[in-house]
Amino acid sequence: MKKVLIANRGEIAVRIIRTLKEMNIKSVAVYSTADKDSLHVALADEALCIGPPPSNESYLNIDRILTAAEISKADAVHPGYGFLSETPEFAKRCEENGITFIGPTSKIMQKMGDKAEARSTMKEAGVPVIPGSDGVVDSLESVRAVIKTIGYPVVIKAVSGGGGKGMRFVHDEASLEKSYKEAKKEAKNAFNDDRIYVEKYISKARHIEVQVVGDGNGGAVHLYERDCSIQRNNQKLIEEAPAEILSGESRKFITETTRNAIAKLDYGGAGTVEYLYVEEEDEFYFIEMNTRIQVEHTVTEEITGVDIVRLQVEVALFNELNISQRDININGFAIETRVNAEDPEKNFQPAPGQIEMLHFSLGRGVRVDTAVYPGYKIPPNYDSMIAKVIVSGRDRPEAINKMTHVLDETVIGPLKTNLDFQYYLMQHPNYIKNIVDIKFLQRNKIIEDQEDKNA
Amino acid sequence: MKKVLIANRGEIAVRIIRTLKEMNIKSVAVYSTADKDSLHVALADEALCIGPPPSNESYLNIDRILTAAEISKADAVHPGYGFLSETPEFAKRCEENGITFIGPTSKIMQKMGDKAEARSTMKEAGVPVIPGSDGVVDSLESVRAVIKTIGYPVVIKAVSGGGGKGMRFVHDEASLEKSYKEAKKEAKNAFNDDRIYVEKYISKARHIEVQVVGDGNGGAVHLYERDCSIQRNNQKLIEEAPAEILSGESRKFITETTRNAIAKLDYGGAGTVEYLYVEEEDEFYFIEMNTRIQVEHTVTEEITGVDIVRLQVEVALFNELNISQRDININGFAIETRVNAEDPEKNFQPAPGQIEMLHFSLGRGVRVDTAVYPGYKIPPNYDSMIAKVIVSGRDRPEAINKMTHVLDETVIGPLKTNLDFQYYLMQHPNYIKNIVDIKFLQRNKIIEDQEDKNA
Repeated sequence: MKKVLIANRGEIAVRIIRTLKEMNIKSVAVYSTADKDSLHVALADEALCIGPPPSNESYLNIDRILTAAEISKADAVHPGYGFLSETPEFAKRCEENGITFIGPTSKIMQKMGDKAEARSTMKEAGVPVIPGSDGVVDSLESVRAVIKTIGYPVVIKAVSGGGGKGMRFVHDEASLEKSYKEAKKEAKNAFNDDRIYVEKYISKARHIEVQVVGDGNGGAVHLYERDCSIQRNNQKLIEEAPAEILSGESRKFITETTRNAIAKLDYGGAGTVEYLYVEEEDEFYFIEMNTRIQVEHTVTEEITGVDIVRLQVEVALFNELNISQRDININGFAIETRVNAEDPEKNFQPAPGQIEMLHFSLGRGVRVDTAVYPGYKIPPNYDSMIAKVIVSGRDRPEAINKMTHVLDETVIGPLKTNLDFQYYLMQHPNYIKNIVDIKFLQRNKIIEDQEDKNA
Repeated sequence: MKKVLIANRGEIAVRIIRTLKEMNIKSVAVYSTADKDSLHVALADEALCIGPPPSNESYLNIDRILTAAEISKADAVHPGYGFLSETPEFAKRCEENGITFIGPTSKIMQKMGDKAEARSTMKEAGVPVIPGSDGVVDSLESVRAVIKTIGYPVVIKAVSGGGGKGMRFVHDEASLEKSYKEAKKEAKNAFNDDRIYVEKYISKARHIEVQVVGDGNGGAVHLYERDCSIQRNNQKLIEEAPAEILSGESRKFITETTRNAIAKLDYGGAGTVEYLYVEEEDEFYFIEMNTRIQVEHTVTEEITGVDIVRLQVEVALFNELNISQRDININGFAIETRVNAEDPEKNFQPAPGQIEMLHFSLGRGVRVDTAVYPGYKIPPNYDSMIAKVIVSGRDRPEAINKMTHVLDETVIGPLKTNLDFQYYLMQHPNYIKNIVDIKFLQRNKIIEDQEDKNA
């Protein structure tokens, strides 16, 4: 009998615990003092408090989590998403302490965490990448040389970047020098790492990502792709599987290419390779790889029938990839909307508080992944996601139709949520027609275009 | 744009309203004064009060329901299950008033409501029936003649019977005359109809039923079968799809035989043909046909992906059966448990009351059909079912495992429920091994065998 510690909280901790129970594996929850009344604490076989908020005192504190693993004699750690899930040091420390990290090796995490190295690694493995400098550029002259081959507009990005920090869009030679210096300075301040690289700026694209699971020994499967183009500030709002826009040929190309790359890398665990997809050209461009379970794995589970968390545990704990590519098929269409405690009328600022009214529209074709319950008080310390509402239908129109009615029926109060905003998006003519790209909200004047201002 | 009145309440009314919304059809709820705070009232586009409890003043009152249909200008009536769903007069009155009854014609309902006629009709249509009198027997001598050909034990049943009224098990000649007289007397008192018929008594069998949908013009599909053997007092507790016990050959035989019979009868609408299945002989025996949607239709929906309520509406309102047999396939395994507000320690007596705590274990592979919400007060006037919890897995062991954990996590209180009892059943070694028949609870000494006393 194995035992797994879940180094996370909220719905993903609950999600993982439920699968562990089904696998007859004991679960250990860790929690901050702010989370003592959380569902993941109630559901796990054991629960250990690891400190107060903020997260670097608890969910981001490697020492405390490893101590909890030692105390509870856990064989393995599941990192979930966010927090330490993509911190190579955490994986390494687990490895050093003889605890199985449910995810890839620290080495491959390191490689994929470095955006320039990820790009060159994936390019070598046969994945299409955005034209640009193959790696770090260390002078303005080198940047100019790159631009000579790829042309304007370009984007300068920090190697250690994230959240738009150290990133500049450059449309012409006139603003290049200024942008280059600003990017380096911002990167230095934010990440203590001023290395930058340059890419062709793709102004209009979809976000399409391929779900993969590798066995760490050259075996890998893909679970098809998701379209997660509806985003706000790079935060996904609505996720779909499969990507309806793709032809069968394009789907086959990108899923098989991704699978082959993952196999070539001896990747072990679940992961997602994210692409920009330019419809007009039918071209994919690698963005990054997430070396963990994702929020939106649910839609892939719905269309394939596969439990991705179970695959993660099987690969990590038992060194078995108990599924072959021919057994993974697309069946129907699934959509997830993220329901957040936030106020869309106040620039989506988080709106934590106590949940007094809670009614989900359940029944046929509806899945709800949540850790909240009536009376639960959402702490202000963590992200504002309350629930993932997932619907399945035979095709995209059926799923959209279903989601519209499901959101309409759902009641969460008295705190503010984005339910009405999601309901509005679900009925937007361009969303329904699938005229969508990652700037959907800006293009349809639903929110202001910050990037245009920036550029 | 069409409009449908739902002549029902509770979870099935909610279930129907949700599908109507997806079909862009307006819904009209009717409700008794005891149900004014019900979910079906809140969800429907319109809601009309049709009187107080008991049901013959409201949900069983044909005049009031037809008046509500007239006031709301409904094009059709969906009867759900229970109440007026199998009352031919209701279907007839709808027909006479130009309102589409979502179900078969009153004529076929009449035929199937008369147990002796149903038996002979189905026998003629090629369905295997229990050996016995082909129709009514009107004298003790005729009963003796039948028994001469089929042998003891036999069961005497009332033509208009139900709920065990007017039914007697006869094991030998000595008790025949007494039982015959008692059955007739009881039937006369209960149904004002003392006609009886005689069948071979089958002492050990499963309850296996085939879901069908016919277009009323000789077209019909089956949606495979369910195993509903776990019962208490003829009330189903746990339902499964498909019936794991059947060989592929037996499944093919009974589903195709049933489909052919339904097609031959020009049956229109959804229906279920119920059989006793004797494992040792691999033989099916027709019990009865239910000419309506059933509580347990959900498990069939989960394994086939088909919305059965939608099929009902399409057939009745648009004269279309938009699915062909080759598109209906079994995918995985589903189990439903009925969660009732009742006290298993007090002979399962109903335990209505206010729901203060309510937490379902949701997430991957879980469907919950319910009309209750936190704060909802279950009225004492109607049946005690609170929720249907449905899980899906790749196979029966996976689904049982999942259901066990789902029931374990579910919290409903402070009122008494059968959750713990269902959790106990789900872990019973004989249930897990699928050593099951319709007397499972008696055979495993979980409840007393009333029938043995009776016999």
